[in-house]
This record gives sequence, structure tokens and C-alpha cells, in this order.
Amino acid sequence: MSIVTIIGAGMMGSAMSVPALDNGHTVRLCGTPLDTEIIDGLKSGGFHKTLKRTLSGNISFFYHEEIKDALRGADIVVCGVSSFGVEWFADEILPLLSPDIPVLSITKGLKTLEDGTLIPFPVYLKSRRPDVSFNAVGGPCISFELCDRIHTEVAFCGFEMQTLRSLRSAFETGYYHLTLTTDIAGIETAVALKNAYAMAVSLAIGLYSGQDNAEPEKYNAQAGLFYEAVKEMGGIVKLIKGNEQSLFFGAGDLYVTVFGGRTRRLGTLLGAGLDMEQSLKILKGVTLESVAIIKVVYEYLARKGAEKDYPLMCHIYERITSDKISEIPWEKFATEY
Amino acid sequence: MSIVTIIGAGMMGSAMSVPALDNGHTVRLCGTPLDTEIIDGLKSGGFHKTLKRTLSGNISFFYHEEIKDALRGADIVVCGVSSFGVEWFADEILPLLSPDIPVLSITKGLKTLEDGTLIPFPVYLKSRRPDVSFNAVGGPCISFELCDRIHTEVAFCGFEMQTLRSLRSAFETGYYHLTLTTDIAGIETAVALKNAYAMAVSLAIGLYSGQDNAEPEKYNAQAGLFYEAVKEMGGIVKLIKGNEQSLFFGAGDLYVTVFGGRTRRLGTLLGAGLDMEQSLKILKGVTLESVAIIKVVYEYLARKGAEKDYPLMCHIYERITSDKISEIPWEKFATEY
Repeated sequence: MSIVTIIGAGMMGSAMSVPALDNGHTVRLCGTPLDTEIIDGLKSGGFHKTLKRTLSGNISFFYHEEIKDALRGADIVVCGVSSFGVEWFADEILPLLSPDIPVLSITKGLKTLEDGTLIPFPVYLKSRRPDVSFNAVGGPCISFELCDRIHTEVAFCGFEMQTLRSLRSAFETGYYHLTLTTDIAGIETAVALKNAYAMAVSLAIGLYSGQDNAEPEKYNAQAGLFYEAVKEMGGIVKLIKGNEQSLFFGAGDLYVTVFGGRTRRLGTLLGAGLDMEQSLKILKGVTLESVAIIKVVYEYLARKGAEKDYPLMCHIYERITSDKISEIPWEKFATEY
Repeated sequence: MSIVTIIGAGMMGSAMSVPALDNGHTVRLCGTPLDTEIIDGLKSGGFHKTLKRTLSGNISFFYHEEIKDALRGADIVVCGVSSFGVEWFADEILPLLSPDIPVLSITKGLKTLEDGTLIPFPVYLKSRRPDVSFNAVGGPCISFELCDRIHTEVAFCGFEMQTLRSLRSAFETGYYHLTLTTDIAGIETAVALKNAYAMAVSLAIGLYSGQDNAEPEKYNAQAGLFYEAVKEMGGIVKLIKGNEQSLFFGAGDLYVTVFGGRTRRLGTLLGAGLDMEQSLKILKGVTLESVAIIKVVYEYLARKGAEKDYPLMCHIYERITSDKISEIPWEKFATEY
């Protein structure tokens, strides 16, 4: 049995403890500087305040100041931070890692290099520590449901299939089903994009159901945007030379993301006719990965002069960056082929 | 302005009258032998008993015995029958058509030829009347919502782009958005498959929410099946040499089909642990296009020896053809690439 150290005690990072514990591993869950309250709660009884579940079994909890203790003798490190924590992880944690311990990251997002290239986080982390094996999880997974051992199907991507297989044997359970792939660019792009496009599909919720989702939803409009979303995601996955199967994980992830959470909420508010400022006021303070990824991807497309092939991305970029409440450009989604 | 004759007064056929009327055309809605009650209601006040909407404007209604009157002088014929009505349409209506009048079909399904080839309905109809232009509608569209002029994005597919453009100008409105394509095989396969796979995704609803959908739904499991569904649909669209963009219409159509209707209901019942006989008893008498398409597609794959690459299709085929209540084969969805 192995020691699995999870760094970042947010919902998804913490949820990763469940399959690891079920496989008999020793789990150490270590907070970031933002997780102090969560670790407080965990240390006094194992209750996770945002997951709203008690984590129990062979698990121990660490404050970020105790990170070296958490890492000592670890066999696998899980990077459990959100995209906003990647620089912190790169600066603070990477120097502490030993080269023979694989890292599995749950972070979804893409990073733009100075020359405009778009790279996934594992590639970025690798550029900072070329001697460490970086891998990542992508695909449809709500953290609550993983905790509750609901059947979940995701992909582990990484540079070496052999390492991926050892990670699979550490995490695979009767409810956590793992596809392995070396298509890091495809998986990471597809699952980052789903945050952007889940906001886009949710515009149709606000359009017909109002900002409080009070009226019955209209599914033709959502499905029309879902079609355009998958089409545009497919185009971008091709641009970065990703595999089509990775796009399908993105489609599954898009499906699950539209059902709830902050991204759906933002799309609903904008779709109901609020502008970005009004919407953010209502969402007060929540960090929105969807907004970050829309900017990164739109700017990448614009730099390539390809944005006109992505009318839905252009629309959501406009909605989040200006106070103009423009209509969904349905007519631009209709093509000939 | 043109005369549009719709043959088949079911929900989707009848809903097609709305964009045609909004474009100022004269619409004639003609029932099949199964539609007599619907036409009774329409003739006395325009109320459609299954659509639960009143059709009004420049529209007139015909019993199937009046079909020649309905077709006289028509500029466009809409084939509005379900897949179970295609042979009736081929036998009874095709001989009445004039060669210069295009046909637009809303029928979703595939037909197996004696040599095992799988062909879409427009190709089949063309084999019976090579001098007529056959075209078809595919993509996410709930008939009620089209009637209510909700934004809808679908594809018109056909053999000649020129004819498709003329059909587009007859039907396109501010809410009915049309992509045109000559990829008949891709569109028709993708949208037929969505009936099969919407049943498959719905298994996860029954599994966790019970046969009455009474418990909260679990989205990880649905999204895992959605991923596998789109992956398998993509494989089949490739097998029949369809275009990837057509698959995306199928993905949008899958999204909308999981939200409601008989196909979702069947999947929920089977997923809750009922067998096919028990499920059909509860669904009493409803015709299930999903069941027909699962059989056609499974047999096509088996004949090619390719069924092992389609574990979800194999599973739903087993569920509808045997009384064995087997579990969803999650482990078979996990691959390496």
C-alpha cells in the first residue's frame, strides 16, 4: 500500500481521497494557505465543510505549514489546487518534490506562453521540473458524487503510459473507472473548454427561465448551443492536435457541468439579460474558472486569426468583457458542409 | 409563396407547419390512416390533441383519403411519419409524387438492406423513386418547443445543396436555424443513434433515482454514459463514412432526448432493475423507435464483427432482447489510447 499526499483541500482534491482510501492507501490531505478553515474542521472530527461529508479511514490532515511532513515518504502526490493556485503550486511545492514520485493533478485550465502558445498545466509544470512525472485527471466528475461512490468515468493523462498504469492501480475502484491516455493536450484542452462552453449553454437557461431559473427550461435552445459548443470544442482540440476521444470526455464533462454550479449560474444570469458587472455582484466573490478560460482561449484564437470560426466563443468573450448585452448569434451557427 | 404539404399529422410533422406558416406559405396537413382523430380535432377548430396547441393561419387539414387533394399543386412535400410509417409512405405516397417536387423527411431511423448494408431513409426512398429529390431534417428539436418558436438549431441534409438552399428559404425563421449538408449518412445515422443511446444514458437515472425518478439524479454516472455514448456514436458515424460535424448534431440531439420522453422512461425503468417485459407493460403500447434502432445497429455491428468495440450498445441490446438484468459494464468503457 502507498502513501498518497493530496495538496489542496478543496472539494475535488479532498474527494480524491475516497478512492485512494478504498484501495487501502494511507492518505495525507494537506491544505493550501486558503484551506485553513477546512483543515481546522477536518482535524477536529474529519468533517469537510464545503464537501459536507466526513472523511474517515486511514487519513490524516495537515496545514500548509506542515507540508514537508505531509510529503515525507509519499509515493504519489496529488495536486489538488484550482487553476488559480497553479502558480502557488509551481513556486512552493515543485521544489519540494522528489523526482521519482509521480504527480497527479486535478487542476483544469490552460496557460498561455509569452509567444502565444497554449499549453496544458502538466506541460507547464514539467517545464518547471523536467525530472518529475506530471499526470492529470480530466472528464466528468462532480466531487460530491465521487465522495458518495457514484459511478464515475474519467481519463488520466500523462507522458508515460507505464506511470499512468501505476496511478490507475492506485485509484481505480468499482465506481471510479479510468481511461488512460498520453493525449495530455487533448484531455486538458477539452476539459478546460467545457467550463467556458457550459457557461455558453447556460445562456439559454437564463434566456427562457429568467435569472432565477423560475420558468420551465427550454431544451431546444440549450441543445442547439450544446451542438455548437461541441463543434467549437472539437475545432479547438484539433487546433492543438488533440485526439478525438479526448473531445468526447469534454462532451461528457460539458453535460455534467451544465447541470449545476457557479458556471451554470453565471450563464443563467447573463442569458437573462444582466451584464457581467451585475452578474458578478450577485455571485459575490466566487472565483470563476470559466471566465479565465474564455479569455485565454479567445485570445489564443484571435492571435491565430481563427476567431471567426468560433462564433459562440466570440459571443461569450464579448459578454464577459463588455457591458453590451448582445443577443446569441444563432444565425452564425448555421453553416453548410 | 409556396404550398407545403405535410403528410403525417404526428407531433413533429405538425410542428413543421409553424415555421412554414410564419414564412407565409400555404400549409396543408394531411393525416395518415393512424391520424384520423388528430385530423378530426384539427378540422373542428385547429386544436392538435397530442401537440396540445392550436394551429392557425393559412393551414388546412386533410384525412388520408384526401391525400390527392392535399398533394395537388404542392411545391414541397414533408414526410412527417415516424420510422414505423416509412413503408406506408414508400408504398402509398411515393407513387403519387411528381419528380420536380422536393421531399423533406422528419423520419429518424436506418434500414438494413438484405446484404447487411445500413442505409438512411432518404437513400432508401431514393432507391424507390430515383427521380425525386429526398432530403431530411436531423438534430435536436422537441416538437412542442418548435411550435412555441423556441430557438432551434438543426440540419437539413440531402443529395443536392441547391435543393437544400431552397428548402432552407422555405423553412428558416428567426427561431428555426438551419445548417445544410450533403452528409445524409452522417446526419441520419447520428440522429437515429441518439434514440438508442438516450435510452443508454437514462439507465443511470433509473439506477440511482429509481423507476419513478423519485430520488435525486446522479450526474457523474449519466455523464460517464454520455461520454461512452458519444464515443460509440462517433465510431459508428465513422464506420458509415459520415462527417464529424454530423456527430455533433447527434450529440446535441442526445442531450435533448435524455431530458424527457418515452426513451428516457424506458432507460429509467431498465436502469432501475426491471426487465424489458415489465418495462413494456408499464409503458403500455407506446411505440419505441429506440428499441428498433438498437436492434438494427447491433445486428449491423455484429455482422461486421465490430460489436466488441461498442460495449454500451451490446449492453442495451442485451437488456432489450433478454430478461437477464445485467449490470452496466463500466469497466469495458475504460480504455487506453
